[in-house]
Amino acid sequence: MAKTEAYPMVGGDVAYSYAKNSSYQRDVLDAGKELIEEAISENFDLKSLGFDTSSKVIKIADLGCSVGPNTFIAMQNIIEAVELKFFQAKNQNLSGLEFQAFFNDHYENDFNTLFKSLPPSRKYFAAGVPGSFHGRLFPKSSLHFAHISYALHWLSKVPKEVANRNSSAKSKSSVYNSSAAEAYSTQFKNDMECFLNARAEELVPGGLMFILASVVPDCIPVSNTSTGVFYEVLGSCLNDLVKMGVLGEEKLNSFNWPAYRATPKELEAIFRKSGKFSLEKMEKLADKGMKTPPSPEGFALAIRAATDGLIRNHFGDEFAEQIFKHFTTKVEENFSRIMGLAHNNLSVFILLKRLE
Amino acid sequence: MAKTEAYPMVGGDVAYSYAKNSSYQRDVLDAGKELIEEAISENFDLKSLGFDTSSKVIKIADLGCSVGPNTFIAMQNIIEAVELKFFQAKNQNLSGLEFQAFFNDHYENDFNTLFKSLPPSRKYFAAGVPGSFHGRLFPKSSLHFAHISYALHWLSKVPKEVANRNSSAKSKSSVYNSSAAEAYSTQFKNDMECFLNARAEELVPGGLMFILASVVPDCIPVSNTSTGVFYEVLGSCLNDLVKMGVLGEEKLNSFNWPAYRATPKELEAIFRKSGKFSLEKMEKLADKGMKTPPSPEGFALAIRAATDGLIRNHFGDEFAEQIFKHFTTKVEENFSRIMGLAHNNLSVFILLKRLE
Repeated sequence: MAKTEAYPMVGGDVAYSYAKNSSYQRDVLDAGKELIEEAISENFDLKSLGFDTSSKVIKIADLGCSVGPNTFIAMQNIIEAVELKFFQAKNQNLSGLEFQAFFNDHYENDFNTLFKSLPPSRKYFAAGVPGSFHGRLFPKSSLHFAHISYALHWLSKVPKEVANRNSSAKSKSSVYNSSAAEAYSTQFKNDMECFLNARAEELVPGGLMFILASVVPDCIPVSNTSTGVFYEVLGSCLNDLVKMGVLGEEKLNSFNWPAYRATPKELEAIFRKSGKFSLEKMEKLADKGMKTPPSPEGFALAIRAATDGLIRNHFGDEFAEQIFKHFTTKVEENFSRIMGLAHNNLSVFILLKRLE
Repeated sequence: MAKTEAYPMVGGDVAYSYAKNSSYQRDVLDAGKELIEEAISENFDLKSLGFDTSSKVIKIADLGCSVGPNTFIAMQNIIEAVELKFFQAKNQNLSGLEFQAFFNDHYENDFNTLFKSLPPSRKYFAAGVPGSFHGRLFPKSSLHFAHISYALHWLSKVPKEVANRNSSAKSKSSVYNSSAAEAYSTQFKNDMECFLNARAEELVPGGLMFILASVVPDCIPVSNTSTGVFYEVLGSCLNDLVKMGVLGEEKLNSFNWPAYRATPKELEAIFRKSGKFSLEKMEKLADKGMKTPPSPEGFALAIRAATDGLIRNHFGDEFAEQIFKHFTTKVEENFSRIMGLAHNNLSVFILLKRLE
């Protein structure tokens, strides 16, 4: 199986762990709960999915699950929505319905922590599935629901063109090369194609995929979003550390952010092109996804929780503390700019249905 | 879900890791390979298992899998046996056959190491399933094969009678109270009942369970087996450390070995009583299971790989090194006795078939 680059969220119990610093992602989940309920109520039918009388197992995967607790909340939201649907439709026989939950993330993810923090009162049989969601993870037609929250923007790798161009540059003001937007976009399309092909095999016909994604509005350049300012702030932080003699110039120049925020239009085109799913819904999560306004420190911790592995992997474990310390200072200096453009960072809920 | 006591094998990459010190268990697996092939050839039929044309997924669980590599070998043995059967039966359509492998062990098992060491060339979709095999782990009728090697002798807990009796004793010469054999046997029967009930739910009708088990011959007291000598040697080692002032007397007195080696007769009675499986085969693995005669150091390392967690859990991390160091010396002194009774430690291959 092809190896892709992995940037696991921070596991364990440290102050900057993903488990403790993912309240923004949690807000997005909460905002998506209602939409999941609606989607299942309108689109999911046990009978048409070929459930027979002896086995009624509903299988759900959360892709890019990290270490919790958000993944457990997502799983619970989906299960409650299914139960609600069958409770309301009184003619459906709920007895014997069982759920199997698959928690997926990269091999480098901290599954030990994930497993130890599984909710004791859960209503499902739990399993962990290691591997990149850009490839196959499950047997054919073995899932009824796939859920992926705030993970699709991670690319399987930095596009070659970006990596090559930067290796010869003398310095950089941002960790994102916005002049190479096309290369990023192409890489994203390729990754999404792999992702959708894999899920098309794995989901049963009629199966549903819920995507919570971070996007940028159509026609807004990345530099006009909080994410763009973040790229700049991190670039400037790393530049400072090069000037201070902490980091080597070459290390900075070869560093590129392996993520891409698509626009809703791009996403729509990708889904339509795949031909294997119907796009049932793409809805902006309004401001529901921002009910916890972060402090500069909170913002910096949340970034660290999601990117500590990436930074360590490139710059070395011994520099992580210093990088994130200086990064926090830079975030404080630029916080009003970051927050001022927050409205240009959108969260969308997407519902795809596997074509019959 | 009920919590049971867990004694995970040693994970990671240390010198006494289970991955590096499980060649005996590996030999048992090799000896069982042929028997698994035979069992699948004679007892497994895709058609009767209700495979439809759209999905041909064979699901296999290895229970008490530890961290590898033995679990990967077991999985490969089973898959090769299935492929062989369908290759030989030319009228069966192999195309589209897929395998899903579930690796189960306690929550405390090192799944991170397990996942990172998955064979890159494997033919199956892998998942990890945390939890005690004395309870439910999988949805109803969701497995075709279950495999459990050298794990059933671990009890879910030390029987109450043994724990209570020993807490008031002044010293002990063995970590196994052979005068409480009945309490151990009862606990084992209860655990086996839980185990078989859970598997009966999870296996499809006609599904197979392969058990590789460590047993003692009928009518031979435990004290006349290598295992019995091991209990004594460990007891004596711990007694020495109490006398040397390293360990507290109370710690020794409250320590009891949470395992039980049943006789083939006992096992047979348990299987017959369960009423949910037919006992298709119970066969001694002759001396095939002992092709690697261990050195005293190798024997001590293998014991540590399987029991380090148990020792640390009871005596504290800070005493583990000293305990195992002294234990190795004691093993050297008693090695001829241990090996002299090795013929009274049997490995058996058991094939159970879920009744239709």
